[in-house]
This record gives sequence, structure tokens and C-alpha cells, in this order.
Amino acid sequence: MIETAMRRAVAESAHARGSSSPNPPVGAVILDADGMVVGVGHTQPPGGPHAEVMALRAAGDAALGGTAVVTLEPCNHTGRTGPCAQALIDAGVAAVHYAVTDPNPTASGGAQTLLDAGVEVTAGVLASVVEAGPLRAWLFRQRRGRPMVTVKVASTLDGRIAAPDRTSRWITGPQAREHAHGERAAVDAIVVGTGTAITDDPSLTARRPDGSLYPHQPTRVVMGRRDVPAGARLRSGENGFLQVRSHDPRDVLEALPDALRVIVEGGPRIVGAFLAAGLADEVQVYLAPTLLGGGAASVDDGCVHTLTDAHRFERGAVEVLGDDLLVVLHPRRD
Amino acid sequence: MIETAMRRAVAESAHARGSSSPNPPVGAVILDADGMVVGVGHTQPPGGPHAEVMALRAAGDAALGGTAVVTLEPCNHTGRTGPCAQALIDAGVAAVHYAVTDPNPTASGGAQTLLDAGVEVTAGVLASVVEAGPLRAWLFRQRRGRPMVTVKVASTLDGRIAAPDRTSRWITGPQAREHAHGERAAVDAIVVGTGTAITDDPSLTARRPDGSLYPHQPTRVVMGRRDVPAGARLRSGENGFLQVRSHDPRDVLEALPDALRVIVEGGPRIVGAFLAAGLADEVQVYLAPTLLGGGAASVDDGCVHTLTDAHRFERGAVEVLGDDLLVVLHPRRD
Repeated sequence: MIETAMRRAVAESAHARGSSSPNPPVGAVILDADGMVVGVGHTQPPGGPHAEVMALRAAGDAALGGTAVVTLEPCNHTGRTGPCAQALIDAGVAAVHYAVTDPNPTASGGAQTLLDAGVEVTAGVLASVVEAGPLRAWLFRQRRGRPMVTVKVASTLDGRIAAPDRTSRWITGPQAREHAHGERAAVDAIVVGTGTAITDDPSLTARRPDGSLYPHQPTRVVMGRRDVPAGARLRSGENGFLQVRSHDPRDVLEALPDALRVIVEGGPRIVGAFLAAGLADEVQVYLAPTLLGGGAASVDDGCVHTLTDAHRFERGAVEVLGDDLLVVLHPRRD
Repeated sequence: MIETAMRRAVAESAHARGSSSPNPPVGAVILDADGMVVGVGHTQPPGGPHAEVMALRAAGDAALGGTAVVTLEPCNHTGRTGPCAQALIDAGVAAVHYAVTDPNPTASGGAQTLLDAGVEVTAGVLASVVEAGPLRAWLFRQRRGRPMVTVKVASTLDGRIAAPDRTSRWITGPQAREHAHGERAAVDAIVVGTGTAITDDPSLTARRPDGSLYPHQPTRVVMGRRDVPAGARLRSGENGFLQVRSHDPRDVLEALPDALRVIVEGGPRIVGAFLAAGLADEVQVYLAPTLLGGGAASVDDGCVHTLTDAHRFERGAVEVLGDDLLVVLHPRRD
């Protein structure tokens, strides 16, 4: 029962990805005294209620004597919102089960507060599942002090992202594009180089297949020194874009202090710069069942000389997306 | 029982791939009157016995009143060996089940001969399984008048087959290389360009992981006008190599009149030439979980200009080979 509720809390937390930053995307489920789900919630954008408070609101009086199941240790910190540990105590919850202990010293201590108030507390429920889920990028940031970087490439099977005449629409099919837009909707920022910004004139928005915008839109970041033209699509919309006038990927990440996860979408030299800097924590390669035989390659490292310079990864999931494949790579553990 | 025996016959026929050419790689199983397997055989190299005769020899007197299960209609033709239909009659087989009817007019008629002799005959057993199996390339040649061409590419996920300094050993891992050598052992010929022959100095033999040679070795074919150096590995071994001094893939296939299946192993321009000529009946792309960011691309078409020139395929099987992936492509049906 508790594990089922935790899986539900993980799924719920996915709705907070991107929009909760810099706060963690947390999910919470309230069970009543009989073990029925009476409330579900996820972290709202900064300044809004945390997951526990959202779930308690939905549960109302049914939380009394019930159980809270939360992906992260309830916070003990009065920031823009009150501490969640106190909210759970005030609602009369009898037991709290959570997955991951809060590593953040200013927010941790919630478990002790709950115990002191006589609430039964269980930690570590499905911890490895939760750590690999929506909380992953936040935990990465807590440990490493920078956002998790996903490098995205979409190419033919011979590694081309455009034909010699620069045509590139569309190499991958609709399912792959839909997947990529879903990823955009879950991150804090998309990074492209000035070359891509000027040549492709992308909007870099996260769109559904019908063209409508997802509620959360990532910050659009252009890296490089050239100016983006006045009429560029990047200048449309209310949020504009952020230009980092540098060729150093570290400068880009430093310009995003609240970001938990960033997607680097190209072009080839930007991808190469993140690889060369050791700043590719995940690589997503979308591959179309096509051979082009000419045109731009997906990655341009700029300084690779011999095969031992290659960026070697561990292969993660391989996913079929219509006609295309998605191959995910992770840094090697050795 | 019959279908199980047919699957066994298909597996047995795999041993004849490459070595039976230009004859079809056939497998045969003899069941005794009680349905027990008493003989299994596959087509021997040209001049040697066909599958049915090999299986009958293994069965001996146990074939009397038994059943023969064969992947292809038994031949009716006295070539270098006697007709298999007559051999089955002489052995006293009571029933013959086969998968595929022989499309070759000089060899067909075996079924009628068997019926005339009072043998029960069933055609079409697991025909689609057999047609997709070891017989596939022979059936292709019967229909199309040329060998089936498999284009092989082994690259990084960004489509590189070598670093800028031309180092390329090893991009893919041992399992992928073992798979590729198993493919070599099953085909009639391997084709490379003079560039590959001169730069990489490959032996182009089919080797087991321990370095020993497979019993069947494909014909080594070099395509192009430049001379292969005197000390080249291609000149070692008893069979030497065949040079086709042309840049037209059709000339290569015409130089291999007995070949059922040919593997094109590169380099990039040779692969591009076969693609551009519409002579890629299957593409095997081995992909290492590596990004190189520089060096030679796997395919160089030479005349591709815009994205609509791309060679689009249907994705077939995706196989995990250790750290690497094998993605198989087939021509699109539309």
C-alpha cells in the first residue's frame, strides 16, 4: 500500500519538473486512516505551496489519523512558505513515509520535528526509484553545485543533422519530436549556439503536437558572441531569451543559478564544447532510419585528434519512437 | 512435429550459407516411421551432395516409411549430383514436407516426381519463416538476377568511423566484431574500396574470437582503380582477392555471378555508391556508445544535396551487442 502510494507520488511529482525550480519537484499522497487515497499534490512554482500542503488541502479532514507518503523528507524550513513538517502535524497525520532524506541543511530536520510531535516516521521507501525519477536533477544540483546537463542530438544513422544545403526539417519523425518537446517542458533551460539561433531561427518553445504551448516553458539561452537578429523567433513571446556571450559552457551554467536541469540542443560545436568540458551528464541521441551521406555532423568537438580522445559513455535505455530510435547515454562509472 | 522438424531444418541450413553458392543453402531432416529424427543434413559445397542426400545418409535404413522435411522443394535435376526427388523415392520415404517451391525451372518438378512415385507431398510448411531465413539471399538472386547486398557500417553514435588521425581500432567492441565476422562467414563476398584496402590494410577474413578462421571464407573484392600494395594482407592466404577496376557497384555485382549475398564494408564513398545506385538491400549499422566529434563520416554519398535526397529505410531489428547496438535497415516498401 505504501509503495503503491509512493509510485503515485513519484508520478505526481513529474508535473512539477521545471516549474518548481530551484525547489525540488516533490510529490505527496495522503491516505486516510483506512488507507484510501484522499489527497495528491506536487510542488507549486516558487512562492506557492509545497507538495505536502497541496495534498493536505485536497484531503481536508480526511487526513486526521492518516498517512502521508512523500518523495522527499518534509521540509522544516520557514521560507516563502511555512514548514511542511508542521503542516502535517497540524493536520493530525499519524504517520509519514518518505523516500529521500533532504541533503539541504537549511531545510532538513523535518523528520525529527515529526518524531518529536509523536508522528511515526519511515525513511527510504523506494529510495532508488525516487532518486532516478523527477528528483534526480535536484539531487544532482545539491551534490554537484550545478544543473544536470542533458545533451540532445537528433540525426540520421550516419550522424548528419542537416543536408549540404542546410535543410534539416524533418530528419526525425513526429513521435521523436513530440518526445523532445516533452523533455523541453520538463527542464529549466534550453541552450543553443548563436549559429543555430541565427541559421535555424528556432522558437525553442515546448509545444504539444497540436502546436499549443506547454504550461511550463524553459528559459531560452543563446551561447556565443554574435547578435541574434531583431526579427528572430527567439525574441517573440513574453520571456525573451538570455544570451551568454561566451564560448565556455561553465559560464552558461553559472548564468542559470536556479536551474536544476538544462538541455543543450546544439549546434555541433556547442555539443562538442559541453562534451569536451565534461559537462554532459546525459546524452539523448534521436536516430532516424536514414543515411544522408553528406552535410553537417551532429558533433564537432574541435579538438579531437585520435580515437583515445573519443567521449565514451555507458549505454542506457534504447527507446523506439515511431520510425526513430532514442539512445540514452550516461557517463561511464570508471 | 513437422513444424519442429522444419525449424530444425532451417537451423541446419544456416551451416550452408556462403559455402553452397551458387546452389541454395538447404536444410533437411529425416523422421522415421515413428516420427523420431534419424537424419539431418545441409547442402554441401558445389559438386557435393545436397541436403536431402546428406540427411538420408545419416538416416540409413531408418528412412524407410519415414518422412523428409526440407526447406526447399527437392530438386528434379541431374546436375553435378543426382536428383534429390529420386534419392528420396529410392530410400523409401513415405512423405515429404517442404517449405518453398523451387522457382528455378531447370531444378523444379521434384514435387511432381515424388507424387508420381506415390509419395505424399505437402508444400508451404512454415514458408514465410524459411523465406526470411538462410534461403533468403538465394531466393533474392532467383527473383532479381543479382546477389543480395548488405551494406555494413560500424561507427560512433555521431557517425564517425575514424578519428581525424585515421585511428579506428576499435570503435565497436568485441561482441559487435564477433557478430560482424559471423556475417562474413555466411556470405559469398566482402567488398571494400581501394582506399580502405590501402589505408587500413585489412585481411577481410572471417575469424572467430580466438583468431582462427571460419571454414568458409568469402571472396575478397576490392573496388577501384588504384593498385593494392605488394605487401598487403589482402594478398596473403591461398585465395588472394578480386579487383574490380570500376567505381560502378553494378560492375562489382556482375563480377560475382555465383554470389548469393555480398557484404559491402566501406569506406564511406563505396557505401555511398551502393546507396546511390539503389543497391543496398539491407543495411547493418553497428553503433558504439561513443561520440567522437571529428574524423571521417560513415557514409559519403558524393552527390547528396538536400534532405529529400536522403536514403530513407525501414527500421528492422535492433540488437544489443555488448556495449554496442546493431540497427538493421530494409528498403522502404512504398
